[in-house]
Amino acid sequence: MADSNEVMEYILKYPPTSLDPIAYSFLAPNTKGLQNALSILNTHPKAYRKFSEQESSPYEADESASIPSEPASDPITNKPSMELSVFAAATESFTRKNLNCSIAESLEKFKDVIQGGKAHGLRVRAYISVVLGCPFEGYDVDPRKVAEIACDLMEMGADEISLGDTTGMGTAPRTMELLRAMQAAGIRSEDIAMHFHDTYGQALVNTAVSLEYGVKTFDSSVGGLGGCPYSPGATGNVSTEDMVYFMESVGMDTGVDLDAVTDIGEWITKEIGKENSSSVGRAILGKRRTQ
Amino acid sequence: MADSNEVMEYILKYPPTSLDPIAYSFLAPNTKGLQNALSILNTHPKAYRKFSEQESSPYEADESASIPSEPASDPITNKPSMELSVFAAATESFTRKNLNCSIAESLEKFKDVIQGGKAHGLRVRAYISVVLGCPFEGYDVDPRKVAEIACDLMEMGADEISLGDTTGMGTAPRTMELLRAMQAAGIRSEDIAMHFHDTYGQALVNTAVSLEYGVKTFDSSVGGLGGCPYSPGATGNVSTEDMVYFMESVGMDTGVDLDAVTDIGEWITKEIGKENSSSVGRAILGKRRTQ
Repeated sequence: MADSNEVMEYILKYPPTSLDPIAYSFLAPNTKGLQNALSILNTHPKAYRKFSEQESSPYEADESASIPSEPASDPITNKPSMELSVFAAATESFTRKNLNCSIAESLEKFKDVIQGGKAHGLRVRAYISVVLGCPFEGYDVDPRKVAEIACDLMEMGADEISLGDTTGMGTAPRTMELLRAMQAAGIRSEDIAMHFHDTYGQALVNTAVSLEYGVKTFDSSVGGLGGCPYSPGATGNVSTEDMVYFMESVGMDTGVDLDAVTDIGEWITKEIGKENSSSVGRAILGKRRTQ
Repeated sequence: MADSNEVMEYILKYPPTSLDPIAYSFLAPNTKGLQNALSILNTHPKAYRKFSEQESSPYEADESASIPSEPASDPITNKPSMELSVFAAATESFTRKNLNCSIAESLEKFKDVIQGGKAHGLRVRAYISVVLGCPFEGYDVDPRKVAEIACDLMEMGADEISLGDTTGMGTAPRTMELLRAMQAAGIRSEDIAMHFHDTYGQALVNTAVSLEYGVKTFDSSVGGLGGCPYSPGATGNVSTEDMVYFMESVGMDTGVDLDAVTDIGEWITKEIGKENSSSVGRAILGKRRTQ
């Protein structure tokens, strides 16, 4: 986790300038990972905002942190929020390959990590991978098992559950079944984030289903970057560009500048030598070229 | 249209072997195009099935044409159906650039073509391009204008209207508005085909909306081939692979062998040196490689 820690240290030393406060999510796979991260945070105790100090979500603008003499529309330097994340998985095979233990054992480990993070005032996000299809066990991932894991993680103190369709095998009816199982288990849609991969082109269809179930938080990446080393053949996350375009098209206000995100997607994919896999990004860039 | 005519002649001379009868759709942009096609058809009067001879859609298996001594699951040689198509467009600018006339003038021309085709027992399909966005006039294509053009074409004798989102600019709410306008104009969903391009990644979302409105016919192309020379920056049609995967995922029986279509998509895109733009095709091929 050396790289993640370096990134964290950099962000604490040189907080990014932005209109809204930025949250940095760091992965703590076990208590050792948590201790490493905490030791960095403890070296810069005033450089980040604790979740417990915040009135609401770290993603909402923190007015108290803005500089009154500056106009609100100008970029300002805010203290970043620090968010801890743990990665569980919905199947025994994936958990075994990824974490080298059973689901029950992984949850035992995460308990210490989550409670350690909460004790230090950090927001905690718990991912559950392969919720709609597993590279080793196939399509039939039990939605009740996912809901059970989610409940356990919430009870340990997780603030949000990100349901990961790691393989992109999710379909509209099974996304619906999963969200019904989550509802039946008493988990609020406000506490759920959906994390889609567009491997089979179903990410936006599944997003539409999730919106109908009241989910408002969605993970995505510019240019469709990402992937999963433990999921053979996995493509990156659904692109932010496609997600924003779709949400705006159905009348939602995302607050995201699609043209700017398109530029970022094109820049970063070129920088790291990957294909820009965003349909919307490529279409916007293509349109600019012809104009 | 020399190439189309050559293809037609080849199909009449060497009818393709398939489990179900095949329909060949030929574009007749004007009466001269129709006359050229009819002269070829008249040279092979018994080599194709007339629409008027068919009980129902040419896409449904014609039991009477099957060879009784052969098991139904074996490929058989059927007479192909011949279908004539005309291409109208929803905006004046696109019609002007594409057909060098006004919409009203284009409809006058199509009247003779459609009626000439019908007189020869051909099924006639009328396309309307840029129904959800025009490269020259933008997003605001009037759905009532599209419905009006569709009514005119149906009155002339067209058997089916294919609504083309040529630019891929269609969104879920505007697809809904368009289909409502078609309903309000008295056009049955059975007489409508949707023709989506996945340029902005919205093809499957818009397909879902269309299914809700009772549309059952969708155009697509293997490997996402195609495009439109009159629509700058246009990508190919939504891929058959993605469409079939989506429809099967929501419980529909497409009758299409997805693995076989994936092979065809990979083969043909390589043959003509184009990128295989089907997400599902690429995912299936990727999965095969890792297994």
